[in-house]
Amino acid sequence: MFLAMACPAAQAPAVPDVARIVGSAQFREAKAFIRGDHERFVRELIALTEIPAPPFKEERRARAYLAMLEQHGLTDVERDEEGNVMGVRRGTGGGPMLAVLAHLDTVFPEGTSVKVRREGTRLLAPGVGDDTRGLALMLSIIRAMNAATFTTRADILFVGNVGEEGEGDLRGVKYLLRKGKYKDRIKQVIAIDGGEQGSITRGGVGSKRYRVAFKGPGGHSYGAFGLVNPAYAMAAAIARFSDVQVPASPKTTFNVGVVTGGTSVNSIPSAVSMDVDMRSESCAELAKVDAAFLAIVKSAVADENRARSTREGRIEADPTVIGERPCGETPMEAPILKTTAAVVQAFGLKPSYGFSSTDSNIPMSMGIPALTIGRGPGGRSHSPDEWTDVAPAGVAQSVEVALAIVLAVAG
Amino acid sequence: MFLAMACPAAQAPAVPDVARIVGSAQFREAKAFIRGDHERFVRELIALTEIPAPPFKEERRARAYLAMLEQHGLTDVERDEEGNVMGVRRGTGGGPMLAVLAHLDTVFPEGTSVKVRREGTRLLAPGVGDDTRGLALMLSIIRAMNAATFTTRADILFVGNVGEEGEGDLRGVKYLLRKGKYKDRIKQVIAIDGGEQGSITRGGVGSKRYRVAFKGPGGHSYGAFGLVNPAYAMAAAIARFSDVQVPASPKTTFNVGVVTGGTSVNSIPSAVSMDVDMRSESCAELAKVDAAFLAIVKSAVADENRARSTREGRIEADPTVIGERPCGETPMEAPILKTTAAVVQAFGLKPSYGFSSTDSNIPMSMGIPALTIGRGPGGRSHSPDEWTDVAPAGVAQSVEVALAIVLAVAG
Repeated sequence: MFLAMACPAAQAPAVPDVARIVGSAQFREAKAFIRGDHERFVRELIALTEIPAPPFKEERRARAYLAMLEQHGLTDVERDEEGNVMGVRRGTGGGPMLAVLAHLDTVFPEGTSVKVRREGTRLLAPGVGDDTRGLALMLSIIRAMNAATFTTRADILFVGNVGEEGEGDLRGVKYLLRKGKYKDRIKQVIAIDGGEQGSITRGGVGSKRYRVAFKGPGGHSYGAFGLVNPAYAMAAAIARFSDVQVPASPKTTFNVGVVTGGTSVNSIPSAVSMDVDMRSESCAELAKVDAAFLAIVKSAVADENRARSTREGRIEADPTVIGERPCGETPMEAPILKTTAAVVQAFGLKPSYGFSSTDSNIPMSMGIPALTIGRGPGGRSHSPDEWTDVAPAGVAQSVEVALAIVLAVAG
Repeated sequence: MFLAMACPAAQAPAVPDVARIVGSAQFREAKAFIRGDHERFVRELIALTEIPAPPFKEERRARAYLAMLEQHGLTDVERDEEGNVMGVRRGTGGGPMLAVLAHLDTVFPEGTSVKVRREGTRLLAPGVGDDTRGLALMLSIIRAMNAATFTTRADILFVGNVGEEGEGDLRGVKYLLRKGKYKDRIKQVIAIDGGEQGSITRGGVGSKRYRVAFKGPGGHSYGAFGLVNPAYAMAAAIARFSDVQVPASPKTTFNVGVVTGGTSVNSIPSAVSMDVDMRSESCAELAKVDAAFLAIVKSAVADENRARSTREGRIEADPTVIGERPCGETPMEAPILKTTAAVVQAFGLKPSYGFSSTDSNIPMSMGIPALTIGRGPGGRSHSPDEWTDVAPAGVAQSVEVALAIVLAVAG
């Protein structure tokens, strides 16, 4: 008992008998329901896809999703201050609360046409897969649980969350786990946001993003020649940064994605800036490349201030964090991972384990067992020709696998 | 006669009696007028400064200046096809036409706040000095000539011209002297565009300007990490270019003035570019730094193609000439120069001779006697905190010196 309190992971159930769950009469009943629920799944997927949800502008879709959640017999259906919508499916008690997430936002800016086209069994539209299919899947799961009258030990919090993509910077899940009313209750997280069925994201690729402004006095290119030039400091920083060595494994990357600045060809710029992205599967490697980058910026600035005149002012650089996704990892031996893998295998699929940057980054970074599972067949995410396949058998499998994972993890 | 035809400079009048002009009762009358005209000068300077005139977008200011010229008793007040605005003050005949220029354009891009601030005797705003003070000065000169009923032998063409700065590439004066209706008549040029009073630009600093686009395949910052990045090639080029040694005399300079490119922080850019300016008082030194620059771009591109993967495509750089200002020089013994120096000395100032890149480059390169004179006290040209001093005594001196130069040169 004492040990269990000191190490909450020990309280987690051992890997449950997945075969028993999937083979049960109740699960067969759920499967029959899911097949009959197909048209509704497709209808809801289209309806949600066609409500634009650009980063920071998810509200319309969030309200529509909230209204859908309200029809699913959940309690405490609500929208939190960050914009996440959610509801609880009460358990019988005794299990650690499981949060199931799908994200509301897409990468596509306002004004993008989100009209869904159908080609055979494919639906095509920006965002139709990532992650609108996840949202629709979640509704089907809840309906199947209700239809087959499943009970779980754990309370399950179903969440349509904001801010997963880009500059959203995981703001929805950050709020949920750091500030929201369930922050101390959520002990396990499953995000439905992966690509292929069977893919399990067990590690959160961490990222750090900066916008670095280099500023100086500026001046006339000829008359003030010899003054410090912030473009030279930035160029030196980029050139040195490009030489930094990072490991191929754990995969670690960096990028200078945007450069901008200056007034005219014959003016020494008074300001230039660059946007930089660094990522790693390893927190230690991310911290290393981050520290190297900041040191390089500092030395490049110092060198420029030494190389040219500072009589009108010095070069200064001001690295501002514009994105930070903590890294984290759910160990291979974690019950949530072993359970999920067992379910995937029970459906005759081969689990594949990967690292990515998803909502699971946040719980993983906090030591909360978490993973991201696949939402089923699709492709071209983040591109205008994004698609998802809604052949009935494939949809049914997507719902069944996710349902079985949720049931097995919630106990 | 034959000699005079073969060498038109010999037709120029000998240095006139400057002391007589400056000491005349008529000039005293002009001085009194100029003092009384101070408020109008300041008002017009502010009004013109607050009409944005970015390169290639001088039209609004040009039309306003045209309207001002129309109130000054000139003939043939018009706007030419290039956008220059001008009017003629008829002479008594016999003198070679003198063109007096001030340029309409500033270096500042659209959207720059051009609201004028006042601090003591200083006016602060982008472009308030360069060359808006020149434009305002020209109006005061014409008014003073009219008030004191000065006549000159030569016709004087007063021009507010476009395209002096940056990418404008002297397009206004090029048109005026190579294509405009006065191209065969203009035999002397005075540009009001220098800095301090008494400074005489007698040499046209040559310049070469490039926009260099660096292009590559682009890709996802994480997924495609390891591909060549055009921002790295450009940064290496800039960093190496910043190390190039140029002589202090003949003055030779270089500048990277604008950098831009990239789609998003998490994309490897498919294209970035930079705008580069090189200048020299010496055509040979200009050719040297130009060759060094092109070699550096080439080596930086080759190094990036070696440093990272080119499996999706190689980096290529494409230096495009966006400006080329011919060098030229008005000899120390040229009458226009000796006359101007004599006027400066008559005001108790010490003439200083310099080389610069101004509208005078074009006449100088064509063998037309030309120089650029100061517009008076100010500083920080081409920077957001540009200022000009409008203490009444200083303004009066600016107008008087310029007026006396125009009178002496126009004969």
